[in-house]
Amino acid sequence: MIDENIIECLENVANILRLHSIRPTTKAKSGHPTSCLSSAEIVATLFFNVMNVDPKHIDYLDNDEFILSKGHAAPVLYAALAEIGVFPREKLMTLRQFDSELEGHPVPRVKGIRVATGSLGQGLSIGLGMAYAKRLLGINRRVYVLLGDGEVAEGSVWEAINLAGKLKVSNLIAILDMNRLGQSEPTMFQWDGEAYARRVEAFGWNTTICNGHDVKDLLRAFEEARKSDKPFFIIAKTTKGKGISFLENIEGRHGTALSEEELKRAESEILPKIKEIKFQPSNFIEAKISIEPRKKYSIKTDYKIGDMIATREAFGRALVKLGEQNERMVVLDGDVKNSTFTIYFFNKFPERSLQCYIAEQNMVGVAVGLQSQGFDVFLSSFACFLSRAYDQIRMASYSRANLKIAGSHAGVSIGEDGPSQMGLEDLALFRAVFGSIVLYPCDAVSAEKLTCAMANYEGISYIRTTRPKTPVIYSNDEEFHVGGSKALRCSANDEVTVVAAGVTVHEALKAYEKLKADGINIRVIDCYSVKPLDAETLIKASKETKHIITVEDHYPEGGLGEAVASLGLKPHILAVRKMPHSGKPEELLAEQGIDAGGIVRKVKELIL
Amino acid sequence: MIDENIIECLENVANILRLHSIRPTTKAKSGHPTSCLSSAEIVATLFFNVMNVDPKHIDYLDNDEFILSKGHAAPVLYAALAEIGVFPREKLMTLRQFDSELEGHPVPRVKGIRVATGSLGQGLSIGLGMAYAKRLLGINRRVYVLLGDGEVAEGSVWEAINLAGKLKVSNLIAILDMNRLGQSEPTMFQWDGEAYARRVEAFGWNTTICNGHDVKDLLRAFEEARKSDKPFFIIAKTTKGKGISFLENIEGRHGTALSEEELKRAESEILPKIKEIKFQPSNFIEAKISIEPRKKYSIKTDYKIGDMIATREAFGRALVKLGEQNERMVVLDGDVKNSTFTIYFFNKFPERSLQCYIAEQNMVGVAVGLQSQGFDVFLSSFACFLSRAYDQIRMASYSRANLKIAGSHAGVSIGEDGPSQMGLEDLALFRAVFGSIVLYPCDAVSAEKLTCAMANYEGISYIRTTRPKTPVIYSNDEEFHVGGSKALRCSANDEVTVVAAGVTVHEALKAYEKLKADGINIRVIDCYSVKPLDAETLIKASKETKHIITVEDHYPEGGLGEAVASLGLKPHILAVRKMPHSGKPEELLAEQGIDAGGIVRKVKELIL
Repeated sequence: MIDENIIECLENVANILRLHSIRPTTKAKSGHPTSCLSSAEIVATLFFNVMNVDPKHIDYLDNDEFILSKGHAAPVLYAALAEIGVFPREKLMTLRQFDSELEGHPVPRVKGIRVATGSLGQGLSIGLGMAYAKRLLGINRRVYVLLGDGEVAEGSVWEAINLAGKLKVSNLIAILDMNRLGQSEPTMFQWDGEAYARRVEAFGWNTTICNGHDVKDLLRAFEEARKSDKPFFIIAKTTKGKGISFLENIEGRHGTALSEEELKRAESEILPKIKEIKFQPSNFIEAKISIEPRKKYSIKTDYKIGDMIATREAFGRALVKLGEQNERMVVLDGDVKNSTFTIYFFNKFPERSLQCYIAEQNMVGVAVGLQSQGFDVFLSSFACFLSRAYDQIRMASYSRANLKIAGSHAGVSIGEDGPSQMGLEDLALFRAVFGSIVLYPCDAVSAEKLTCAMANYEGISYIRTTRPKTPVIYSNDEEFHVGGSKALRCSANDEVTVVAAGVTVHEALKAYEKLKADGINIRVIDCYSVKPLDAETLIKASKETKHIITVEDHYPEGGLGEAVASLGLKPHILAVRKMPHSGKPEELLAEQGIDAGGIVRKVKELIL
Repeated sequence: MIDENIIECLENVANILRLHSIRPTTKAKSGHPTSCLSSAEIVATLFFNVMNVDPKHIDYLDNDEFILSKGHAAPVLYAALAEIGVFPREKLMTLRQFDSELEGHPVPRVKGIRVATGSLGQGLSIGLGMAYAKRLLGINRRVYVLLGDGEVAEGSVWEAINLAGKLKVSNLIAILDMNRLGQSEPTMFQWDGEAYARRVEAFGWNTTICNGHDVKDLLRAFEEARKSDKPFFIIAKTTKGKGISFLENIEGRHGTALSEEELKRAESEILPKIKEIKFQPSNFIEAKISIEPRKKYSIKTDYKIGDMIATREAFGRALVKLGEQNERMVVLDGDVKNSTFTIYFFNKFPERSLQCYIAEQNMVGVAVGLQSQGFDVFLSSFACFLSRAYDQIRMASYSRANLKIAGSHAGVSIGEDGPSQMGLEDLALFRAVFGSIVLYPCDAVSAEKLTCAMANYEGISYIRTTRPKTPVIYSNDEEFHVGGSKALRCSANDEVTVVAAGVTVHEALKAYEKLKADGINIRVIDCYSVKPLDAETLIKASKETKHIITVEDHYPEGGLGEAVASLGLKPHILAVRKMPHSGKPEELLAEQGIDAGGIVRKVKELIL
């Protein structure tokens, strides 16, 4: 039996949330109040009855979690957080202001919010990652994800639904705010709740349809969800703009605030419904499990100079060494673990490995969820296929996420498989992620040590690995750090500096020998840290030699050459400029002029 | 009744295709023969019985179409094309060689192949676009898409399934080669055909499960497909490595060719099954409808200097003008048409507009399919959300596609909505697409004319538009071209050149006035063509002024500044370097130092 008094209290809270949604958006003159209004009862019921939350320790792991996947309804979430006491109500009116953390869409600057949302269709993957994390941690808590009906068209949502169904992640609960209206027109299925239920059930979830404005019916749905042995999907039929007569179910009011005059009319409808009720929610808990601070890790290698080993394989070996030191390390892969060599970790630590199948968007979302619960997450695929998840990676930077991403099969050096499998834009993409670091080792020693540097980095780190085997050139005691480089050949007589990374380092070293035979000295720099660059070494080289050449197995735009150019140097950029295609790696490197021969030609062209 | 003779003939063809799949891969020492072997009967049945094809005019529009979404099975497709006579069989043995167009994964260099595949999960969206195109053209033909079972985990597949179901595109037929094994382990559902059928049916398709090695059963399935009033999904249970005893249903043989010794054993199993049969396929047709060459379009504008209008809105107006001239122009949007202003085209030409809902990956795939049938396709979303489809856009460049892409809401100048909605990496992303052009207008006149330039460009073009209104600064007779720029302020006494684009052009003009009041002359260049750059004008400016400053509402990596730096100039790059957040546009531009004040400060720092 549900206490009628509780229902009245929750209805009251819902109307308070409505008020807190329309007032700040009107003050800000922008925002999405109608999308808040449709969710008011759902959010009120969750925060004041259903979710186990400790408002004083909302960041602790033994809270239930809430993700607002429909991030544009941020005001209703801010309102709920204020109402449960996470921060003062007065702050709500600072919404969208320059100096307020209550931004237009949620970001983790706000206490009680773990991840950024606002690019639609990403919340469920993150929720899956969080729910899976709680399972790994043995914490018996649930994750609630509030979805908009428009965003369910995103394939990433179905990737999450698919994997959650397969893994039977029963502590994951999605609530669909089925308010019928998208931004520009009605959604695909409008109020056809069965259309959603049919789809989601086919993917191995339990579902129910309820009236999203009927608190009693919502409580019934959440009770069913708690009993489910599968992930659970609540389809809540709602009305966009609910509670304000002149906004209810109206098209064309998606992203507009109420005018001052409209606000007055709206208040005159809502205020009379709000009562002064003493309400002691029964869902507040005392949370106890905080996230432990991260430790520092180290790696020792045992290679001989000249050993032939691919950097992707060395990366895989490093993962195992790190996993031995770090029980909170998790590795994800998208059905290429035998190519990216995460398979070593999968074999050694199956309980901390997650096969995400060929669904990179969801893989990144799951990783964001896992890291939000204190895990150190590496994820891996072919460099080119990571581009599939770029929007998720971009958003992860706004989540202030700690993500370690490895992209294998970089460049034309993969050879016969052809351009569909070649990462030729990944340096540009990952350099443009806010706060990222981009590492690109050329041999096994540097690959292992840079993998360790990623483990120790807080933020988004990317390592680019190569398919073919390359010789070990570094001794095992060599150290590598973020923002470093190695001057592999350096003399007072160097005429030209060649800045290389990854596979082209070996081409530059070959070019060095050829040119030396002709009496020409070049400086060779292994620029293994593409972001940040070792500016000091590069500027010094530009002063000490007549020319700088950069050489990269990547398109010229946004890659190593432009990075070096952005320092104010004037590099001659050797890069992939012809349409890539299949062939032997050495043929393709030669065709693009980024092999030893191409470097020799360019050096001679510059100085002879 | 199905003729037993036909069945024997098709089985025979299947074994010939097997032979043509294993021999070239062994010669190339790489490839995915086992993935070809599982599809042999499906491909044989399609090309020699089911599909209406004209081998002599395979590029004509009134052929049925075939898309190999599981692109790694390229050899079996090449084999089929050779066997129906599109090119000589001898060419098959050039597979994966440097100078052969028979690349590791399909590209349209090969006659009979319209689009590149190989990044999994993209073929069905393209097929949907092609099928929709045939419907628009009134051509009663079907599109067959062969999917791998691993790739069905990709959300993009479900975006395509969803939209095709909604639109009831009944001339779209998908065939799932359910061979149970992914690259690194078994697929999610292995041979559980019902798992796929349940899911796909829930999305509004008809389905059947068949034995993918039983030609009779396949023919039955295709017959059902032809009768369906909905898109049709055939789940073909197959065996990876089928036909070669030691490869059948074996893990760990995804991406490896047979050794010479294995090839001999394999041939000894397959050759005895191949008979010399005279076979006159009944599905060959005489196609008649070729793709018409594209025309050139022009635009006239009617603005007054100083009119306040957002470039996104001018883009929308230009679409209508182009649509009036071009009956083959189609516009797609992802539920933001009222923000990107494609709504003008949608309202004027509803029959040539397609609402793709919030599913950007599928939108790009559909566009690739449409343009392959001769349509001129514009597609639009917020710049940041286009990053969702980057893998599709990357692949479109290998499809040699003609795509016109518009990204609105560029930069921090969008203001209060915050970083989730800000395009801050789009210049980097689109510059790194092979063969692309990147345009960035600052006012309505240039926005319209550059939209026209896109219409006339063959390849992938991108236009970046701005949310806030900006004043018209160009007269209506001004011309704009790919690779051009405008020196808006230019004198013999310029001390510094400021290179701007989009919203920062107006800041640079304001800075000009402020500096002029202090007796400092700057040159202001509107660099509206970010790729290719107007190198001549920029280099001239670098010679005539002491310093170059670039200023962009974009992250520094891969943007305007690095593009200018790549010319060998040494720009001081003003860009978005602090974590972006909500606020008023002018506050945010100022915080990032990319407003007039920031430009003035930088100029003075350099010369005083």
